[in-house]
Amino acid sequence: MTIQRQLVFLLTLCLMCFTLGCTQEQASNSDTRDTDLEAIKSADAAWAQISINKDWEGSYAYFTSDAVSLVPHAPIAEGIEAIRGVFDQMQGLPGFALSWKTASVEVSSSGDLGYSFGSYELSFDGADGAPVTDIGKYMTVWKKQADGAWKVALDMFNTDLPQ
Amino acid sequence: MTIQRQLVFLLTLCLMCFTLGCTQEQASNSDTRDTDLEAIKSADAAWAQISINKDWEGSYAYFTSDAVSLVPHAPIAEGIEAIRGVFDQMQGLPGFALSWKTASVEVSSSGDLGYSFGSYELSFDGADGAPVTDIGKYMTVWKKQADGAWKVALDMFNTDLPQ
Repeated sequence: MTIQRQLVFLLTLCLMCFTLGCTQEQASNSDTRDTDLEAIKSADAAWAQISINKDWEGSYAYFTSDAVSLVPHAPIAEGIEAIRGVFDQMQGLPGFALSWKTASVEVSSSGDLGYSFGSYELSFDGADGAPVTDIGKYMTVWKKQADGAWKVALDMFNTDLPQ
Repeated sequence: MTIQRQLVFLLTLCLMCFTLGCTQEQASNSDTRDTDLEAIKSADAAWAQISINKDWEGSYAYFTSDAVSLVPHAPIAEGIEAIRGVFDQMQGLPGFALSWKTASVEVSSSGDLGYSFGSYELSFDGADGAPVTDIGKYMTVWKKQADGAWKVALDMFNTDLPQ
């Protein structure tokens, strides 16, 4: 081979490997989509089951330490301690129960950020002892942690019932 | 150079270019972070200004066609037509006004999905003509469109006021 041919060969090889490097990275992103969607759906379902079981301590473990929760009739709760404050009060209501069902999930192509939304049912015993039931909807933003687990960074809910 | 030395040289070159390819892709992801955060913040502020201006048609243009809106005292509104139905009713209240301020934004490393949350103020004229004011909080999920613009895929709000 002449020097020129060798140079052309080397440059082509470099370009091919560089492109392969880029493609690999993109492929690894999109390849995780189905796994990530399934993981968020599973996390949301497992979290709901923990709530059905009234395992409130287990429920708090789903939030990141700097999570934000936007609960009706309360100011923005920033950080896990503020979130505990708001939810401890709700969970302290006599006969309090909360469950929810995921309607849909979505995830970023980088697989680090996703969200779910769906419907909830909440009930407790009113002042007269009769059960008070609320139905509504929620949305949750999930962040993938360093260990691969999905945790709640932000969540919110509101009622479907007429004012 | 011997054949062996040439082979080692070529393999090293391939590895370097492959790694460079991967690194470039990752760098291009994280390089857009600040731009994306700024773009979401700007979009949220521009959207709020459009609402202050009571340009409701302009406001609807911020939603993707398959967006979902979770409005209090109403079922889940899926798709822009359902969203119009819910918001047209609210905006039809006499003296209706709505504004909000972003508190925080976040974005995925792939720069295709992000969210914002903050506080809102809503008011309208009550049955007796006296203004009724509600303050609360909102969260919005943003998706980057093919043209680079950020649009609303999901949003929700609820009141801070006591029940």
